[in-house]
Amino acid sequence: MRSLLKKRSKKSGLPPGTLVHVGEQKTEKIHISVLTYGAGKIEEREITRMEECLDLRNKSAVTWITVRGVHDVDVIEQIGTCFDLHPLLMEDIVNTEQRPKVDYFEDSLFLIARMLSFNHKDIVSSEQISIVLGSNFVLSFEEHEDDTFQRIRERIRKGRFLNKGATHRGADYLMYALLDAIVDNYFVILEKLGERIETLEEQLITSPTLDILRSIYHLKTQMIFLRRSVWPLREVVNSLLRTESVLIKKTTHFYLRDIYDHAIQVIETIETFRDMLTGMLEIYLSSMSNRLNEVMKILTIIGTIFIPLTFVTSLYGMNFKHMPELNWQYGYLWALILMVVMTISMLIYFKKRKLV
Amino acid sequence: MRSLLKKRSKKSGLPPGTLVHVGEQKTEKIHISVLTYGAGKIEEREITRMEECLDLRNKSAVTWITVRGVHDVDVIEQIGTCFDLHPLLMEDIVNTEQRPKVDYFEDSLFLIARMLSFNHKDIVSSEQISIVLGSNFVLSFEEHEDDTFQRIRERIRKGRFLNKGATHRGADYLMYALLDAIVDNYFVILEKLGERIETLEEQLITSPTLDILRSIYHLKTQMIFLRRSVWPLREVVNSLLRTESVLIKKTTHFYLRDIYDHAIQVIETIETFRDMLTGMLEIYLSSMSNRLNEVMKILTIIGTIFIPLTFVTSLYGMNFKHMPELNWQYGYLWALILMVVMTISMLIYFKKRKLV
Amino acid sequence: MRSLLKKRSKKSGLPPGTLVHVGEQKTEKIHISVLTYGAGKIEEREITRMEECLDLRNKSAVTWITVRGVHDVDVIEQIGTCFDLHPLLMEDIVNTEQRPKVDYFEDSLFLIARMLSFNHKDIVSSEQISIVLGSNFVLSFEEHEDDTFQRIRERIRKGRFLNKGATHRGADYLMYALLDAIVDNYFVILEKLGERIETLEEQLITSPTLDILRSIYHLKTQMIFLRRSVWPLREVVNSLLRTESVLIKKTTHFYLRDIYDHAIQVIETIETFRDMLTGMLEIYLSSMSNRLNEVMKILTIIGTIFIPLTFVTSLYGMNFKHMPELNWQYGYLWALILMVVMTISMLIYFKKRKLV
Amino acid sequence: MRSLLKKRSKKSGLPPGTLVHVGEQKTEKIHISVLTYGAGKIEEREITRMEECLDLRNKSAVTWITVRGVHDVDVIEQIGTCFDLHPLLMEDIVNTEQRPKVDYFEDSLFLIARMLSFNHKDIVSSEQISIVLGSNFVLSFEEHEDDTFQRIRERIRKGRFLNKGATHRGADYLMYALLDAIVDNYFVILEKLGERIETLEEQLITSPTLDILRSIYHLKTQMIFLRRSVWPLREVVNSLLRTESVLIKKTTHFYLRDIYDHAIQVIETIETFRDMLTGMLEIYLSSMSNRLNEVMKILTIIGTIFIPLTFVTSLYGMNFKHMPELNWQYGYLWALILMVVMTISMLIYFKKRKLV
Amino acid sequence: MRSLLKKRSKKSGLPPGTLVHVGEQKTEKIHISVLTYGAGKIEEREITRMEECLDLRNKSAVTWITVRGVHDVDVIEQIGTCFDLHPLLMEDIVNTEQRPKVDYFEDSLFLIARMLSFNHKDIVSSEQISIVLGSNFVLSFEEHEDDTFQRIRERIRKGRFLNKGATHRGADYLMYALLDAIVDNYFVILEKLGERIETLEEQLITSPTLDILRSIYHLKTQMIFLRRSVWPLREVVNSLLRTESVLIKKTTHFYLRDIYDHAIQVIETIETFRDMLTGMLEIYLSSMSNRLNEVMKILTIIGTIFIPLTFVTSLYGMNFKHMPELNWQYGYLWALILMVVMTISMLIYFKKRKLV
Repeated sequence: MRSLLKKRSKKSGLPPGTLVHVGEQKTEKIHISVLTYGAGKIEEREITRMEECLDLRNKSAVTWITVRGVHDVDVIEQIGTCFDLHPLLMEDIVNTEQRPKVDYFEDSLFLIARMLSFNHKDIVSSEQISIVLGSNFVLSFEEHEDDTFQRIRERIRKGRFLNKGATHRGADYLMYALLDAIVDNYFVILEKLGERIETLEEQLITSPTLDILRSIYHLKTQMIFLRRSVWPLREVVNSLLRTESVLIKKTTHFYLRDIYDHAIQVIETIETFRDMLTGMLEIYLSSMSNRLNEVMKILTIIGTIFIPLTFVTSLYGMNFKHMPELNWQYGYLWALILMVVMTISMLIYFKKRKLV
Repeated sequence: MRSLLKKRSKKSGLPPGTLVHVGEQKTEKIHISVLTYGAGKIEEREITRMEECLDLRNKSAVTWITVRGVHDVDVIEQIGTCFDLHPLLMEDIVNTEQRPKVDYFEDSLFLIARMLSFNHKDIVSSEQISIVLGSNFVLSFEEHEDDTFQRIRERIRKGRFLNKGATHRGADYLMYALLDAIVDNYFVILEKLGERIETLEEQLITSPTLDILRSIYHLKTQMIFLRRSVWPLREVVNSLLRTESVLIKKTTHFYLRDIYDHAIQVIETIETFRDMLTGMLEIYLSSMSNRLNEVMKILTIIGTIFIPLTFVTSLYGMNFKHMPELNWQYGYLWALILMVVMTISMLIYFKKRKLV
Repeated sequence: MRSLLKKRSKKSGLPPGTLVHVGEQKTEKIHISVLTYGAGKIEEREITRMEECLDLRNKSAVTWITVRGVHDVDVIEQIGTCFDLHPLLMEDIVNTEQRPKVDYFEDSLFLIARMLSFNHKDIVSSEQISIVLGSNFVLSFEEHEDDTFQRIRERIRKGRFLNKGATHRGADYLMYALLDAIVDNYFVILEKLGERIETLEEQLITSPTLDILRSIYHLKTQMIFLRRSVWPLREVVNSLLRTESVLIKKTTHFYLRDIYDHAIQVIETIETFRDMLTGMLEIYLSSMSNRLNEVMKILTIIGTIFIPLTFVTSLYGMNFKHMPELNWQYGYLWALILMVVMTISMLIYFKKRKLV
Repeated sequence: MRSLLKKRSKKSGLPPGTLVHVGEQKTEKIHISVLTYGAGKIEEREITRMEECLDLRNKSAVTWITVRGVHDVDVIEQIGTCFDLHPLLMEDIVNTEQRPKVDYFEDSLFLIARMLSFNHKDIVSSEQISIVLGSNFVLSFEEHEDDTFQRIRERIRKGRFLNKGATHRGADYLMYALLDAIVDNYFVILEKLGERIETLEEQLITSPTLDILRSIYHLKTQMIFLRRSVWPLREVVNSLLRTESVLIKKTTHFYLRDIYDHAIQVIETIETFRDMLTGMLEIYLSSMSNRLNEVMKILTIIGTIFIPLTFVTSLYGMNFKHMPELNWQYGYLWALILMVVMTISMLIYFKKRKLV
Repeated sequence: MRSLLKKRSKKSGLPPGTLVHVGEQKTEKIHISVLTYGAGKIEEREITRMEECLDLRNKSAVTWITVRGVHDVDVIEQIGTCFDLHPLLMEDIVNTEQRPKVDYFEDSLFLIARMLSFNHKDIVSSEQISIVLGSNFVLSFEEHEDDTFQRIRERIRKGRFLNKGATHRGADYLMYALLDAIVDNYFVILEKLGERIETLEEQLITSPTLDILRSIYHLKTQMIFLRRSVWPLREVVNSLLRTESVLIKKTTHFYLRDIYDHAIQVIETIETFRDMLTGMLEIYLSSMSNRLNEVMKILTIIGTIFIPLTFVTSLYGMNFKHMPELNWQYGYLWALILMVVMTISMLIYFKKRKLV
């Protein structure tokens, strides 16, 4: 629960645009990587403070700045000043409990997505990724120190973003690559959850316990959590496809459409998992009720047979002076036969009622 | 329930536009604060009656009138006359059971939102906030005496609404600030409810009682109540974004969009809470059925083992004259061995059936 | 049920436009009231037959004709001829099982709404109100003899529909007033149902019985019934707001918008009530299952303790000649101690299992 | 089930446009009725084969051809050739498992609706009615031999489709009349189902049995079946209303709108019935659980009182040599008093727990 | 589950456009069939590698290339190069876990559908069919070696795609024929599932076991799976109908509309089956609860009658020295009469409570 609404309240009452970090601090230091590619060259450097603003007037290259760690409001503010970002946009970056969304500005575009991972308790947790797309730069903000986009960085280093003839992939393609990495990761998460559901499904059939019920409940809660991260992302990509912003070239549309398809696939899988978990819950409840029936049937059969028999034995255990049967030669035999007859008729009755 | 439909019926049959206060009277006196900012000056005064109408022809300042307490129909009517408000609009202000909505007039705009708080019974209750936006004034009406917008008032006093160069924030920005304060407050409410749900979740696992069930039910009812306050507000903000009214400047759009995002976030959290509460209910019912199974298993095992044994003892407790076993040398031992064998075979049977 | 589909079938196979009264006859005689206001004058008269058609060429006044009782097909037909109404429209008036709707004609507009009331069994029943709006007349048709619009009639009599300067409220405003009266009445109905739900809620907690369950079921059925009356009315008003018919003046739009808001409020309250009733059903079922658990726990504890004890006593009640224990000096004491030990260990076991 | 998807598979793999009759053959011979009205004349004749194509160049009359029985593919094909119908349209006519739909061609319009009736098992079954509308002809195809549109035929015979002054109702009006007959019939079906639900409701309260449960289930299945027939028909009528085809005159729109209203009313009634059946299921389950509680309470009370008592008697039935109580003068009285005290305290306990 | 998300994760992190085969390899070799028809000729040949690209400049014929087996990335890449296909399109072909979709390119159109079949475990599994439509060619990619479109191939061989006068069916019609075959197959699958549901329904009524419950659950899971394959296909066909691509001729629209209708029919049947399965689950649970009631009733009746009787016998089995009844002449008779009276009153009580 807390993860759903973490300390968001401490912002309540503050004027809009006030930079307050909302969320858990996930790294100690802030890392800033600057990567420039284009005109056949690839440059890279690591800094921890934005000493001076970058000069981006050279349109022949794309600059990608990655900021890992957003708890230091001053650093974020400095970057915001450099790139002339809107105060509310800055606020969204440091408030790490945002849902995925996209905002369009005059010469830039701001979007939020959520990266999923399993935390130390093996529960799905999410990290906010904020991306600012300019005409020839991309800013990406992450909460963790780990480099989520390591593989993309390597592809750039290997020159995969440089085309033949001194041209290069645009900033919009870079943004797409980041989004693609995020959505691809959802499949990894879902696959692991799918395996858990499969394991639970098997256990459910062999031995239904209250623990399995709780696991089903927790998996369902995680599905809700996942849905909240992925569903709005689909809207974000859809909006990017429909926008007329010059920032996104026509050729990138096809790639975005691919992400859109994947997002829908993820959402459908989540829905399928929810349906399956609901079905498993029904199986669980039915199994419980089945078991109760089984147990009660045993008690009923035993009770129904032996209680009347015990009555008979108890009857002839009475100490009345004058009980004729007690003195009969075959009194005992009579009692035994009586009891055998009672037992057999009971069993026939049960047979008819399909109880045994 | 009553809170959902409080004395609305007493208006039934009255002609439209008749001012009748609907709802609980929440303050004794009516407080009216008048705050003017602009042209580098900030003026403030408190009145209790609208003695004379304000002159708002001076367009270089923004006037914010806050009315706290709406039960005195005369005072509200007087204000309405001063600002030339539509009779139905006046009716909506004093009828405090309205759902959030926005109405557009020629030179003003009227909106209703609902402020949430916990009442003395710790149940979420709501207060109607009516806002009238003119070109250079804002009227806000509250039910309570407490100043909901205390912090905004202070920000104005500190000159935060005055820009450099003798310009100032417009009335539309002030309206946004009020809405922002209302939505921000929702997060505070949700956070508290979230903590309660978390507590309940823990109790549910350790000891499920009927009280927990009732708490789940009451929380669910409150979620419905919350939804009714927040869902239409989202529509209100969306309408403000789409309107072509000159009252709302383009620059304010971005701020309104921010509120819109927050409103969606609140609605999603409410939905998540509802899903969680439904899941908890299922866990509760399953726990109950589990417990019943446990209890019945004990009775069945004890009954199934001892009822046949007691039959045997009872058999040899009969008083027939002629019972050969009774006279056997090892008759007692035979009976004991018989019973041990019966017990062991029962236990083996239970083992197979996975009952013990 | 029958109330949902009353004798609609008797129309099956008849040609369209055939006037057949569908529904219960709710009054014996047909009452026709003619009320004219405008040009500073208010005229009123009661007739029982439409002897001759009214002359409505005088545009300076509004004529309101109320017909109470629609079972006499001839009278309705005569009115239809006078006002040149479409055959299907006439059919709709006498077929009192229509859902709320609006139809636009060249120079008139036809709408159906449903007035709610509690019948003698305290169950919500509905009456069809058909309204025809012309440029300077309104026809309203009711099923009951009682004057539903008594209060509006009185307001007209008091001159409230005459403005200063010889002008008057238009026919469209009159139609709005009728709709407003209908919707206002919904709040009265809902308030009473809300009180019943509240009473049930209290009873549910103190003593859940099968009768309460049935009341919940009946209230739910009534909610479905209400929804069917109100939901399409919302659509009707929405359609009136969007139409470009000259019959509805721009100034009336604001009033219609008010009704629209109220209709939504009614629908939301119905939804809330449904959700609450569903929640109460869950509480009921849980209480039942709780009770069963309680009852079974008692039986299990008593059974589990005494059945083994009785076995012991029964054991030493056997009549074998050779039972060493029976002859022991402290045999009885030994048996008693054995039973005390058994009882105590059982209680400890129950304590651990949290059964006592 | 089979009725939902009857032998549709035998068409799998065949080229489109292949005429294969899908569905049960419901009549032996094919009946073809040709009815012409217009220019003041009404002509009628019955044929069994389409010997020669009709000449429809005379625009001053409307020709209505009814084909009853669609299993003979050759006859249908011949008609198709005469009227120049599209191969896929022909395929749809003989494949009687189609859902209601409408297709627009250059100079004709094709629609499918479903006529409902109770079959010999009193279960709702449906028959496909295919209608082709041309500028001055209507073709209608039915599966059954019975004349579904008997009443319309009679109305035409009586001259009701001929107007004064040698004009006549158009083909579009005839099509409307057919659709109206189909929808009117739905009300008859629903009324009967409604009566069954009412009967079940009463039985449910007096004596809930498994048979009632099965009836509820079967009624629910029939509701699903009905919905599948009616829901798309609403879409069909809506499409007819929105189409710009010259085949449908403006004056017919009003009539179609009437059918549209009726279709919605039917759908709403189906939904209401479904909700009621779901509610009845809940009542059923609650009654069962109530009964179980009742039964268990009896066993618990009897068991809890007598098991301890039997223990006491059993105790003093032991055969130990040295049992002091047995020799007491008032030993028996002591035991009796002990048991009375135990019984009374048990009853007090039950009273407190509200079990008796 | 695994079938829902098979090894999709191994693609995570790879650059877009990388060809990696995702899914099970379903054939060993890749088969490529090339079929050309048009200008009165039909040519056909089988190859295993795309040695050289086909020359398609001759517009007077349609070429259909079928690739069966998509695991060999090189072969697919070669084909892609020949037909100048987009890298992402190639990626989609080899990633066989795609949902149905359509993408439009400048001079071609790409769509994915899913062919259903029962696997060796009799569970519905799906195979991805990718189709590329050019102006005079169609490429179709299947996973299996079996020729899914065998019948269409035969129809072409028989000259059914050649019209009189040297013209022929266009490539768009061929694509339609492929889609039609896929959708037709859905009916076969549904029919088999429908039969299973019917069988289950009968078993459910005669003998409800846990196995039936599991079958219901598995059928429900398969319905979810089916829905995921068919629902997006409906969207695909709808998109084809609305597109303005020159690739699809107006005459083909009518055929596509037919597929659209069939897709809706399939979806509705799936929904109906889901509703029926849900209803069956409810019946199952109710039967279980019914059975429990039956079983408990037996135990309660036997217990309630015999436990008090045994108490009486046990009472007179006590060994007190001084028990007057024991010495009565008719003591035994008295005890017997007492017990008969008790039994009769119990039975009367049960009769009243409707328990026997």
